[in-house]
Amino acid sequence: MATYFSKRNLQFLLHEVFDAEQLTQYEYFSDHDKETFNMVLDSVTHIADTHMFPYLKEVDRNQPELIDGQVKVHAKIKEYLKEMGDAGLIGAGFSYEHGGQQVPLLVSSCIGFILMAANNGMMYTGLSSGAAHLITSFGSEELQKTYVENMLSGKWQGTMALTEPQAGSSLSDVMTTATPQEDGTYKIRGQKIFITAGDHDAVDNIIHLLLARIDGAPKGTKGISLFVVPKYRLDGTPNDVTSTGIYHKLGQKGVPAMHLTYGEEDECIGYLVGQPHMGLPYMFQMMNDARIGVGMTGAAIATAAYYSALQYAKERPQSRRLNQKNALDSPQTPIINHPDVRRMLLFQKAVTEGALSLLLETARLFDLSHVTEGEEKENYNLLLEILTPMAKTYPSEMGLQATSQSLQTFGGYGFTEDFPVEQYYRDIRITPIYEGTTGIQAQDLLGRKMTMKGGKAAQLLFAEISKTIAEANTYDELKPYGDRMKVELKQAQEVMMTLMPHAMSDVERYLSDATLFLEMMGNIVVGWQWLKQATVATRTLLTQNPQGDELAFYEGKLHTMKYFFHYEIPKNLGLAARLKDTEVLTIVSEKELAL
Amino acid sequence: MATYFSKRNLQFLLHEVFDAEQLTQYEYFSDHDKETFNMVLDSVTHIADTHMFPYLKEVDRNQPELIDGQVKVHAKIKEYLKEMGDAGLIGAGFSYEHGGQQVPLLVSSCIGFILMAANNGMMYTGLSSGAAHLITSFGSEELQKTYVENMLSGKWQGTMALTEPQAGSSLSDVMTTATPQEDGTYKIRGQKIFITAGDHDAVDNIIHLLLARIDGAPKGTKGISLFVVPKYRLDGTPNDVTSTGIYHKLGQKGVPAMHLTYGEEDECIGYLVGQPHMGLPYMFQMMNDARIGVGMTGAAIATAAYYSALQYAKERPQSRRLNQKNALDSPQTPIINHPDVRRMLLFQKAVTEGALSLLLETARLFDLSHVTEGEEKENYNLLLEILTPMAKTYPSEMGLQATSQSLQTFGGYGFTEDFPVEQYYRDIRITPIYEGTTGIQAQDLLGRKMTMKGGKAAQLLFAEISKTIAEANTYDELKPYGDRMKVELKQAQEVMMTLMPHAMSDVERYLSDATLFLEMMGNIVVGWQWLKQATVATRTLLTQNPQGDELAFYEGKLHTMKYFFHYEIPKNLGLAARLKDTEVLTIVSEKELAL
Repeated sequence: MATYFSKRNLQFLLHEVFDAEQLTQYEYFSDHDKETFNMVLDSVTHIADTHMFPYLKEVDRNQPELIDGQVKVHAKIKEYLKEMGDAGLIGAGFSYEHGGQQVPLLVSSCIGFILMAANNGMMYTGLSSGAAHLITSFGSEELQKTYVENMLSGKWQGTMALTEPQAGSSLSDVMTTATPQEDGTYKIRGQKIFITAGDHDAVDNIIHLLLARIDGAPKGTKGISLFVVPKYRLDGTPNDVTSTGIYHKLGQKGVPAMHLTYGEEDECIGYLVGQPHMGLPYMFQMMNDARIGVGMTGAAIATAAYYSALQYAKERPQSRRLNQKNALDSPQTPIINHPDVRRMLLFQKAVTEGALSLLLETARLFDLSHVTEGEEKENYNLLLEILTPMAKTYPSEMGLQATSQSLQTFGGYGFTEDFPVEQYYRDIRITPIYEGTTGIQAQDLLGRKMTMKGGKAAQLLFAEISKTIAEANTYDELKPYGDRMKVELKQAQEVMMTLMPHAMSDVERYLSDATLFLEMMGNIVVGWQWLKQATVATRTLLTQNPQGDELAFYEGKLHTMKYFFHYEIPKNLGLAARLKDTEVLTIVSEKELAL
Repeated sequence: MATYFSKRNLQFLLHEVFDAEQLTQYEYFSDHDKETFNMVLDSVTHIADTHMFPYLKEVDRNQPELIDGQVKVHAKIKEYLKEMGDAGLIGAGFSYEHGGQQVPLLVSSCIGFILMAANNGMMYTGLSSGAAHLITSFGSEELQKTYVENMLSGKWQGTMALTEPQAGSSLSDVMTTATPQEDGTYKIRGQKIFITAGDHDAVDNIIHLLLARIDGAPKGTKGISLFVVPKYRLDGTPNDVTSTGIYHKLGQKGVPAMHLTYGEEDECIGYLVGQPHMGLPYMFQMMNDARIGVGMTGAAIATAAYYSALQYAKERPQSRRLNQKNALDSPQTPIINHPDVRRMLLFQKAVTEGALSLLLETARLFDLSHVTEGEEKENYNLLLEILTPMAKTYPSEMGLQATSQSLQTFGGYGFTEDFPVEQYYRDIRITPIYEGTTGIQAQDLLGRKMTMKGGKAAQLLFAEISKTIAEANTYDELKPYGDRMKVELKQAQEVMMTLMPHAMSDVERYLSDATLFLEMMGNIVVGWQWLKQATVATRTLLTQNPQGDELAFYEGKLHTMKYFFHYEIPKNLGLAARLKDTEVLTIVSEKELAL
């Protein structure tokens, strides 16, 4: 079996860097220990090895089709859903009360990572658990009893039905209506688009978590409510949800993206989740883990691409080393020995392992914010809030670039379907788009998170990074890098000083380069993660005297940290220069620029 | 008809910036004038509008197939080849003697640009003219008489058969053999892969320009010869060229990439072109325009993607302007009014128009190097040599990023097949790979071109850029940008000072970050092109008082130049910092890094 992720690296991050077992000191996670965590990962790896990775190409090449109003998907999907449900892996993060295993997000994120690295075209289960989580968090006991069990067992599919033709990024403009009925239910009427797994024949029912406006509701986001809308009612009759169209996509071809019409015959019944007009706040409470999930998909695809490129680079002989160009009698050398190829591989390793580390850091904060109380809880929550847009975007945007470099590593073969990398390159392109585009994440970071509670989230983040610097700087070899990180923090503060005056007076100006700000901050937090990893690696090298593969593993960590600081961190020079630059070029002026 | 390029911009570059008519002062081009150049462009635009752009999706979706040893392509290809041949456009750049129109490369590059912007999956003709050009340049009169006419009329297809399974970037390792026969011909035996248009049924014959080793030839590149190998001999009998396989590719699906076997039955006859063992020098003499051609493909695809994104951004309403977020009663605004979308569009415009300008600059140098003599010729040639790796790479690498931003502009729709942008994103991915990968171009620039003739090419380039700076600096508005370009040149010189000591002693070290050097130099030469364009625009604004669309066009040029200097040029800060950094991280050491 080809390798699509590194078990060793996952163990390193989970146990050595983030000390997952530490979470078991909290009541909620107290039944777990390192061993149960690893058992979960072994179980998901087995499913991924057996039911997912071998079908990577096949699922991509046999796309879902809409035939006579019903979407047909690859036969393997049903098998996969059953395996995942039977192993309790769809609902692993749920509480015992709801049939889950109370596994922390730190660990269940790793489940997602392994699944998406193996075959991200089979991304069905994350949607079911996300939808079920909305019901367990905000729905009535009846809704919970009726829907959750079948969603977590893989018998039913959950979806998130937010986007409409006229309302993509602008949820204010959702137009789907909900008309109250005498029995307390609602009649739903509207169109939703891009609904992932919105219809398919590998399950018996599809449960849509749908945003709509109750008749007479306020305009904008304050008038949106959340509903459960099943494809089939409990008595088995159709609930007037029509598969209007299926999108043909660049990637993630194994899972259908649907255009759905609700209430074409005015017979579509929906069930209100929680309170009226609370749809968006509910959704936002789920947004953090959904965004971590997308980031994880980006990191996972880029990781699989990296391991395919690495294997190729070790096996493919081409040319001689640059200092021995004319030694024509000697055999060609594997391309991994060419500095430019090595640079491409180190870039992929630095991005993917840095991204994964950032995502696990964020997931851990999510867990801590759920099991703590008071100020501690608030602080974890603020850190989670500020890191989420970076944890969504860095793995997506930089994962995309890393995957492109994986393809480049293969040369001409990378462009062919003989290797899986062209598929990874197609698949990962969606990650900077869904669950809020990069532009939306940037507005969230600079427009909301940097300024929330008087900048407290940013202060907490900088304090956390400073703690890591202090620890790193106790080792001579790491001190230059810790010091460099100090310079980066100072530079980011200078940028904020330049931008802040506009935050109140002219939001458009304030946010005009928000995406570059997000990119700069992404480099900083991933640099922070590399410093953290390098500190653990250095300590281990000094105290445990590892040998062989283990020695190489820890040295590889140190080396890749250095790569990140010498090649990636310098990009912030240009970003900061632009962000401090006062010439505005992207805002429409009176004298409109003809584009 | 949707727009896939800007005629206005092409006129601006061709006539206002590069003054194409100036070339007609040379005897070789003296039959031409501005009008004949424009007639050629109108004629190619008509073909592109009629026979190419409307079939963009159809040709992509109906890939060539290998059936019973023969490749079948879309029926449209034959029609297109006939139109191009009849209009004299395949051989427009050839001399009258060879049936051409003696059109300069400056103009025939624009032909390629329009064709590739319209439908780069139909890239057949450039290969025929490239192959025919090898024959007219180095082949015997008999080879010329036998093959060229039918290649330029579109009846026969030309190919470049270089790559072998074990010899991709490493042409030293070509193994195909050529055994001399008594009649002066050669028996060819070997395998070639990735042969674009290597077999298809839209033509009556395929003429391979093939690299092989004559029995007993020296090792390495010094023992490679060039042959003409037809699929069918002149008497119509097959020449033992077998279509062994067809590659399924990520993009450019309309044109087959073939695995071919020559001489399976030992009956494959080849005809030597020119002298024995001169194959590589011959190929290299054609390499400059082939590489300009690939750069042009990158620029063209990215341009088509930009115009599709621009149209979408003008039409797609989404949300309100950031300063009016809560004006829920007002209609949604077209997304072009959001600063982040405008930034993405300006990036695309800056990259594509800057790349096209660089390519036309390079093509003009190619023309001048062919019609001048003595030192003048040598200087033009040196400038051409040093610019070529940048003219190939910048449009490919940055065109890829621009196309990715075009896709991003569409949000979720960009990921679907409803719009052509997902196809552009797939198609353009090959451009950093073929005709020498980015890594190979980087070695060419830093390893050969920067140091050739004691650095004279670099000196000439810097002198040319300085001329543009001097002219720009006569305008107050441009002076800050001219001055900034001076700083960039100085920085590049500092980088060279850091690297030069390694050039002789340790080539591997010298070239270890060559790709970053190429990236930095690419930004500089495209900045140069923007300064040039802005100078023409400023002069026109001051002297000709343009109105309406014309005013907007010239102001758009100035604005985009500013965008380039404020957003793209700062990236060189990070690149230069890395290049001056002495910590080497990409060379395999004794203590091997486990990757």
